[in-house]
Amino acid sequence: MTATRGAWPRPEDFAAPPGPAQRTAWSESDRVARPARIGRLRARFAQAGIDAYFGVRREHMRYLTGFTLAEGEEKSAGNSGQFLVAGDEVVILADSRYTIQARREAPEARMFEAYGNLPERWPEIVGSVGARRIGVEAGFVSHAAWGRLAAAAPDIELVPVEGWIEADRAVKEPAELERVSAACAVADRALATLLPDIRAEVTEAELALRLEWLMRTGGAEALAFDVACLSGPEAALPHGAPGDRPVLDRSVLLFDFGAQVEGYRSDMTRTLFVGEPSARDLEVYEVVARAQAAAIDAVEEAVRGGGEMPSGRAVDAIARAVVDDAGHGVHFGHSTGHGIGLATHEAPSLGKAAAETPLPSPTVFSVEPGVYLDGEMGVRIEDLIALDAPAGRVERLTRFPSEVTVVGA
Amino acid sequence: MTATRGAWPRPEDFAAPPGPAQRTAWSESDRVARPARIGRLRARFAQAGIDAYFGVRREHMRYLTGFTLAEGEEKSAGNSGQFLVAGDEVVILADSRYTIQARREAPEARMFEAYGNLPERWPEIVGSVGARRIGVEAGFVSHAAWGRLAAAAPDIELVPVEGWIEADRAVKEPAELERVSAACAVADRALATLLPDIRAEVTEAELALRLEWLMRTGGAEALAFDVACLSGPEAALPHGAPGDRPVLDRSVLLFDFGAQVEGYRSDMTRTLFVGEPSARDLEVYEVVARAQAAAIDAVEEAVRGGGEMPSGRAVDAIARAVVDDAGHGVHFGHSTGHGIGLATHEAPSLGKAAAETPLPSPTVFSVEPGVYLDGEMGVRIEDLIALDAPAGRVERLTRFPSEVTVVGA
Repeated sequence: MTATRGAWPRPEDFAAPPGPAQRTAWSESDRVARPARIGRLRARFAQAGIDAYFGVRREHMRYLTGFTLAEGEEKSAGNSGQFLVAGDEVVILADSRYTIQARREAPEARMFEAYGNLPERWPEIVGSVGARRIGVEAGFVSHAAWGRLAAAAPDIELVPVEGWIEADRAVKEPAELERVSAACAVADRALATLLPDIRAEVTEAELALRLEWLMRTGGAEALAFDVACLSGPEAALPHGAPGDRPVLDRSVLLFDFGAQVEGYRSDMTRTLFVGEPSARDLEVYEVVARAQAAAIDAVEEAVRGGGEMPSGRAVDAIARAVVDDAGHGVHFGHSTGHGIGLATHEAPSLGKAAAETPLPSPTVFSVEPGVYLDGEMGVRIEDLIALDAPAGRVERLTRFPSEVTVVGA
Repeated sequence: MTATRGAWPRPEDFAAPPGPAQRTAWSESDRVARPARIGRLRARFAQAGIDAYFGVRREHMRYLTGFTLAEGEEKSAGNSGQFLVAGDEVVILADSRYTIQARREAPEARMFEAYGNLPERWPEIVGSVGARRIGVEAGFVSHAAWGRLAAAAPDIELVPVEGWIEADRAVKEPAELERVSAACAVADRALATLLPDIRAEVTEAELALRLEWLMRTGGAEALAFDVACLSGPEAALPHGAPGDRPVLDRSVLLFDFGAQVEGYRSDMTRTLFVGEPSARDLEVYEVVARAQAAAIDAVEEAVRGGGEMPSGRAVDAIARAVVDDAGHGVHFGHSTGHGIGLATHEAPSLGKAAAETPLPSPTVFSVEPGVYLDGEMGVRIEDLIALDAPAGRVERLTRFPSEVTVVGA
């Protein structure tokens, strides 16, 4: 791919936000899918020698039970939403602030009222399902909380478990992919709507807030993460925050942003040019675009070939080789991509240290190589790719073009 | 207090948002205060027999080092921002995405590059400060991560530590209280600006988004938490989320919201009346207002008396007694209040199970009794109170009146 220049996309080029009927259908899909999700979890019990599973991660609550906490709400929710999956029932903890919500969202579960005094109630709740060995989300329960549960019921064994539900969640149901795709369209439309507002002198923070507003009034119930809007040298910070800095003329402008639609998230990055690009900036852009294309092409070829899918590590290596060959290897410090769904970053990972097992299907992940020249500029291009190898599908869910886009004229 | 009715407050009744000079002065105050904050932490080392402290909580990173992650950013930041305080230096972990930021924000600290491979690097980093026994934030390091650190350097002892910096942070510096106060004013102004827009038929979600927008374009860099806007029966959910439900006429409308200004947060709740209040609703309102006044009066009296401050548990009991006496004890399930600062909920706590030690000074906490009638309505009134007993100061930082306010006419 070379850095061609296209016409500006328009908001109406992208799918309209989902209506109430679609949203209700997704909610119903989740309800129907939950028994199978719980079944997959229970199928792991025997091998690990456990008879129940104690979960605390907010994405897992929603995936398995329907109980929903907003991002960050777990910090003030105490034990509410934490759950115990036993052989034949699911129990949800909730204090008085959350009992009505839990009954609405997770009607299939039994409710257990606990008020931040879980260790005290632990023997009772565990006894009520007859469990003796309990798998516990060791990556999300604090060391201190673990110790308190262990001390509260010394005859109950706590077995550290990591990555089970994460592995299941990497494989997406059709209704999950539809929501990621809908979240991509909300973000695509928002950026297309913003384009005419971009010009030198508007600040990064103003553009970031406007882009957020467009997503949140355009079908997103929340952001996937805080909008990054970084101009010129600031774009060299792969995790920079927008500032009260005016956008620079004749410079790059990097947007990294995503929407959340019915719980599922999108994530995209576009690096635009404010005014005529310099030859150097165009050259960097082209390297990044070629690296991204090479990675996606490799996945497409593997699907066409019908053989084994490449691993996340292999796809990362393909993108990295293009950047290396252009002499920018040291300017590409992060991973090539990550899975996405209820969390912005989830399995599968595409990076130097990622698994060497084939990518799962159906799944969805970002491909987002970047080149960062400290103190000068940075370019990243990020799209979400849906992969379903058995169905022969590799689809770019991010529809906003990645051709060179010049704004601010 | 009785439920009197006042004129609508106007935006200009409240302090204007801080300008750049004020913000720079606060940043400078932090820089000057950090050595003393770190000194207080080190002063605890001997008693616990440790020679270094490993911290991972994002509020602690900012408080002690200046390194700042946005809410939720710690989920994708890996080890970046985690820190080690040794006897004579502070070390901050950062991967390539965060090194430039860490150098800017925490110039006094030594940087240590780690890429999510902390256990592997642990012996090296710990060795570099010569530590043998390390206090670790056991309430925030996961059980799995703790096990990996322990295995990586079996000769280094990990000592669980909880609540040290939380206790220090409960006592506020003047520049911290100023920022909480500024965040209160941003929220006060935003609600005053919103009042004319409130009427039956506008949805909860629309009003919540508008209120958020007003705060974020009115001086707040972020929200303290998602805005709650709950109409009629929904106000009976102490943690409900705004929906696409139109606001009901002749009903209560509860807003719980807060702003963040230079890292510090506010939290306020107002229960307004859309159209003429019913006698029952007014009666509930008056009970809650009296409970709040009783709690604040008790703190004021203690300060005037010059003796020992009441405990958080005692203040809770005072508010609760008023609600109990009115026959609504069972409708007030949550605590009376909480400290606030870099986190929305922090020490000191005002609740049934709170500490029985006297409230610290200077400090700031919410007083927010509520009465919730399931399926019917709910009322909560929440203000932030700054307390400095030695200085004889008890000040309501939330300035929006709490008299009965009728809107939607």
